[in-house]
Amino acid sequence: MKVDDPAARAREAVRALYDDDPASQALGIEVIEVVPGRVTATMRVRPDMSNGHGMCHGGFVFALADSTFAFACNSRGEPMVAAGASIEYLAPARVGELLVATTTEISRVGRQGVYDVAVTDQAGKVIAVFRGRCARLRAQDPNEFKTGGSP
Amino acid sequence: MKVDDPAARAREAVRALYDDDPASQALGIEVIEVVPGRVTATMRVRPDMSNGHGMCHGGFVFALADSTFAFACNSRGEPMVAAGASIEYLAPARVGELLVATTTEISRVGRQGVYDVAVTDQAGKVIAVFRGRCARLRAQDPNEFKTGGSP
Amino acid sequence: MKVDDPAARAREAVRALYDDDPASQALGIEVIEVVPGRVTATMRVRPDMSNGHGMCHGGFVFALADSTFAFACNSRGEPMVAAGASIEYLAPARVGELLVATTTEISRVGRQGVYDVAVTDQAGKVIAVFRGRCARLRAQDPNEFKTGGSP
Amino acid sequence: MKVDDPAARAREAVRALYDDDPASQALGIEVIEVVPGRVTATMRVRPDMSNGHGMCHGGFVFALADSTFAFACNSRGEPMVAAGASIEYLAPARVGELLVATTTEISRVGRQGVYDVAVTDQAGKVIAVFRGRCARLRAQDPNEFKTGGSP
Repeated sequence: MKVDDPAARAREAVRALYDDDPASQALGIEVIEVVPGRVTATMRVRPDMSNGHGMCHGGFVFALADSTFAFACNSRGEPMVAAGASIEYLAPARVGELLVATTTEISRVGRQGVYDVAVTDQAGKVIAVFRGRCARLRAQDPNEFKTGGSP
Repeated sequence: MKVDDPAARAREAVRALYDDDPASQALGIEVIEVVPGRVTATMRVRPDMSNGHGMCHGGFVFALADSTFAFACNSRGEPMVAAGASIEYLAPARVGELLVATTTEISRVGRQGVYDVAVTDQAGKVIAVFRGRCARLRAQDPNEFKTGGSP
Repeated sequence: MKVDDPAARAREAVRALYDDDPASQALGIEVIEVVPGRVTATMRVRPDMSNGHGMCHGGFVFALADSTFAFACNSRGEPMVAAGASIEYLAPARVGELLVATTTEISRVGRQGVYDVAVTDQAGKVIAVFRGRCARLRAQDPNEFKTGGSP
Repeated sequence: MKVDDPAARAREAVRALYDDDPASQALGIEVIEVVPGRVTATMRVRPDMSNGHGMCHGGFVFALADSTFAFACNSRGEPMVAAGASIEYLAPARVGELLVATTTEISRVGRQGVYDVAVTDQAGKVIAVFRGRCARLRAQDPNEFKTGGSP
């Protein structure tokens, strides 16, 4: 790996984030592709993610999208935290299904970023669309919201 | 319990939904108050919900809000499914913290509903605000999106 | 025009909507392309749309996106009303600029639709992204929300 | 007016913003109450704001909410710009109706703020709910998005 290879640095940044993220690991999320600003990840719908009709609880569809978004917005090396997100549920996902989340970097200007995530099933059908907003952390502002550090 | 007691019917509707919802149970969500259109529920942040800095992964904050919203919008007896939602992350939540989600019914007209959820820590500090949108299911429309049934 | 030509019917549906829409006309919105499910429209930023720094007020960027969304979701011939929307402001737009709004049909299932709108300046720079949600009107439900009729 | 009177300073900040805002003036928006972090404003629905059925075009309901939000988030004296917003349309508003927008400051931490706006008709019926997100401007970051300055 060349130190100035953006793709290798993006993979390293996402790997470090994932290795330090028990939640994404416990959800069974797997990162399958990383380029700067764009990540693809998968999650298989388990019975304990079901809302009782054999369908995936919306919170877990969201969690897959949110993790993939976090990986994508941190793939450029600058630490970003999620500020908020919206999701539209378009179709149900069944237990056993392998969900695939792919990101698109809509905007990254100054200290703000906007990313879209599409969650599909294995057949490519879109289950949900997600739009996440992130902000860059600054060390120097003691009042600033930090998700990743101690107070 | 009188059969025409709306509060008792709301509690029954939410209990039935919860009993049939492995995801909410596996998340450790507990419903602590139900009145028609309004539910309060809690969830303790476990280590496997952490993003690696001892802070709750946003997806699990969302999942608590989403479950509480689903209970609230179904507490009036008519089956509703979530159509979408947005969340704003306002402060981090630490592992071990007991999160409390409370709902407000913003609108319920015809086949559509809008509900707000606030997620606080035990000290009452707001961790996140969530706004959910739901739609009533119709049996007669075969093309309609169903989260809760087989195809 | 063949009566079964979907493109011609889409243009007719949008023309009828536009002709009956004083707001879009007063805003100077022009529809420049219509295919079923997809519309492109423009609006020039006037001084009375400015927030005082020579920049377009966000409400007018939103109004262009909202009109274009309404045209797109009604281009398939079934009457739809906007249920809600979100917008992310990515860059300012100057007075005198010609804004261009283009739509993408994300989902249209049963009685619900989701559409994305990108608003760009003439150089193609993205000014804002918008996501709109619409619902089909039903004549038979007297409680249903109607934007287009008397009570 | 005492220079350290927060209410007087809030009114001054909003007055300065309004006086320099041709769009809000052209829309007929009137600011009727200001306290720090909270603003109430009105707008009468004119025929040229109608979508052709005698109902207010959603873009103008949004514009009233967006202006009122901008006044509220700037009422504390620090310049903030809107980063994005969402709106849910709950009921139609008729031409001639006087709409009233009231704000609630949900969160203001560091460089970010979240504000809710409710738009009602004169009878107090809620027409729409709006949630806006703002960010503080920094002079020192040349890449940062500025809505209010020249390039």
